[in-house]
Amino acid sequence: MTIKPIGERVLIKVKKEEKTSGGVYIPESAQSENKEGYVVAVGTYEDGSELPVNEGDKIIYGGYQTDEIDIDGEKHIFVDLKDILAKVEE
Amino acid sequence: MTIKPIGERVLIKVKKEEKTSGGVYIPESAQSENKEGYVVAVGTYEDGSELPVNEGDKIIYGGYQTDEIDIDGEKHIFVDLKDILAKVEE
Amino acid sequence: MTIKPIGERVLIKVKKEEKTSGGVYIPESAQSENKEGYVVAVGTYEDGSELPVNEGDKIIYGGYQTDEIDIDGEKHIFVDLKDILAKVEE
Amino acid sequence: MTIKPIGERVLIKVKKEEKTSGGVYIPESAQSENKEGYVVAVGTYEDGSELPVNEGDKIIYGGYQTDEIDIDGEKHIFVDLKDILAKVEE
Amino acid sequence: MTIKPIGERVLIKVKKEEKTSGGVYIPESAQSENKEGYVVAVGTYEDGSELPVNEGDKIIYGGYQTDEIDIDGEKHIFVDLKDILAKVEE
Amino acid sequence: MTIKPIGERVLIKVKKEEKTSGGVYIPESAQSENKEGYVVAVGTYEDGSELPVNEGDKIIYGGYQTDEIDIDGEKHIFVDLKDILAKVEE
Amino acid sequence: MTIKPIGERVLIKVKKEEKTSGGVYIPESAQSENKEGYVVAVGTYEDGSELPVNEGDKIIYGGYQTDEIDIDGEKHIFVDLKDILAKVEE
Repeated sequence: MTIKPIGERVLIKVKKEEKTSGGVYIPESAQSENKEGYVVAVGTYEDGSELPVNEGDKIIYGGYQTDEIDIDGEKHIFVDLKDILAKVEE
Repeated sequence: MTIKPIGERVLIKVKKEEKTSGGVYIPESAQSENKEGYVVAVGTYEDGSELPVNEGDKIIYGGYQTDEIDIDGEKHIFVDLKDILAKVEE
Repeated sequence: MTIKPIGERVLIKVKKEEKTSGGVYIPESAQSENKEGYVVAVGTYEDGSELPVNEGDKIIYGGYQTDEIDIDGEKHIFVDLKDILAKVEE
Repeated sequence: MTIKPIGERVLIKVKKEEKTSGGVYIPESAQSENKEGYVVAVGTYEDGSELPVNEGDKIIYGGYQTDEIDIDGEKHIFVDLKDILAKVEE
Repeated sequence: MTIKPIGERVLIKVKKEEKTSGGVYIPESAQSENKEGYVVAVGTYEDGSELPVNEGDKIIYGGYQTDEIDIDGEKHIFVDLKDILAKVEE
Repeated sequence: MTIKPIGERVLIKVKKEEKTSGGVYIPESAQSENKEGYVVAVGTYEDGSELPVNEGDKIIYGGYQTDEIDIDGEKHIFVDLKDILAKVEE
Repeated sequence: MTIKPIGERVLIKVKKEEKTSGGVYIPESAQSENKEGYVVAVGTYEDGSELPVNEGDKIIYGGYQTDEIDIDGEKHIFVDLKDILAKVEE
């Protein structure tokens, strides 16, 4: 069973670690807004072209996400491209 | 009798299963927002070109839908393209 | 006397039937929003090109319409193209 | 003395008849919004091209008009093109 | 000393006459919104091209103007192009 | 040390004189909104092209500015292009 | 570990000095809005082209930033391009 995001959004597996590897720590105050997660599936621009993130990317995202689903017991959310702040490249 | 959506929207037959096939479960909290359903009919972009979903697709959608109709006793709703989060491909 | 809508809107003769022919029933809850009616006259896009509906089409429309007129004792309303949800083709 | 509207708007001489000729009657409830009037002068699109209405046209308009002037004792108002609902052609 | 408006706006010398020449009278109720004045200086579109009004034009304008300056004891205001309703040509 | 504005904005040295040279006086009521100042540094349009103001220009600006900095004890503010009302040319 | 901003934003290391080098002082009142910092990483325009700032640039930024992360104990924030007011070039 695969989930294929539609439009300018991605599906993220949420990561709840306080201290992220590599010294990036998202302070509690910000935590409610910024979180980290792994890209599980990627949508496209309206013309079908690729978004600037790929499956497996580790990302930091902001905004207020409400589109949440549970896959095999793990929390996933849909995040709009505009709310993806950055990739974290190890 | 066929119903032909106009513009960037689709007609969905709503699916109320808690546990979706394939382990995708939409948690209660999110449930009021995200739901699953099957595409029954598809509109077009303003220039007449096709939308990126097809009849029979199983989809997850968000947003707050109010455009509801009942066809042969089954609940259907019109969903704008922008509120379709993803296709679920078995 | 003819009424020629201007811009991206159409003139609809409102239909109040509970059960629409062909099993499409617009539930009470939705009724205040979605209604059915017949297209009486059609406007155009700004460049003068045709809208994707024609006189005589039976349509389902949403949104909150306030532009109402009475023609020969029958209730008509102007509906913006963006509020036309679908055509009902018998 | 002539008044030349600037931009996408027209100058209307307001008509207050209950029953309009040809059986078009604008019900009281709608009346505060929709009214009828005659086009007295027409503006242009930004590129100078003509609007889809002409001097002398009888029109139905909606929206909430506040730009009112009095010419030779008769009430006139400026109406934006987007608030012109239709022409009434006898 | 000259004042050169920047962007899609003009500088108007405000005229407070009740009865305008040529029978155009702006009723008290509207008066707080619509006023008359003479164009003193004209800005440009972003690409530098000319606006559809010229120095010396007598105009009727709407909207709520707050950008006021006093030149040699006379009240002037900056009016955005979109709030200029019409030219009054004698 | 130079300050190079980024985007469609300029850096202004604020001038607080009541009576401006050349008889332009910005009435108290307006004063809180409109002020005069000298352009100290200029940003660019997104494509890098020049804005229609230059260093040294004396300008009148409106809007509510909050981006304030102090350079060598003198009050400066960043003003968006859209809030620059006019140049004052002696 | 590198952090690569996505879209029209940059990652800033926040600088809290009262008096900035070169006499630029951001008054307390403004301080809550305008701050200074050093660009640590830069995103791109949607078409992939470069933003008008570079790593190492010292900048003044406004707006209300909430996307905060902590890298090796130092406060960093994501700032949208539109909120970057200027570069400070020594």
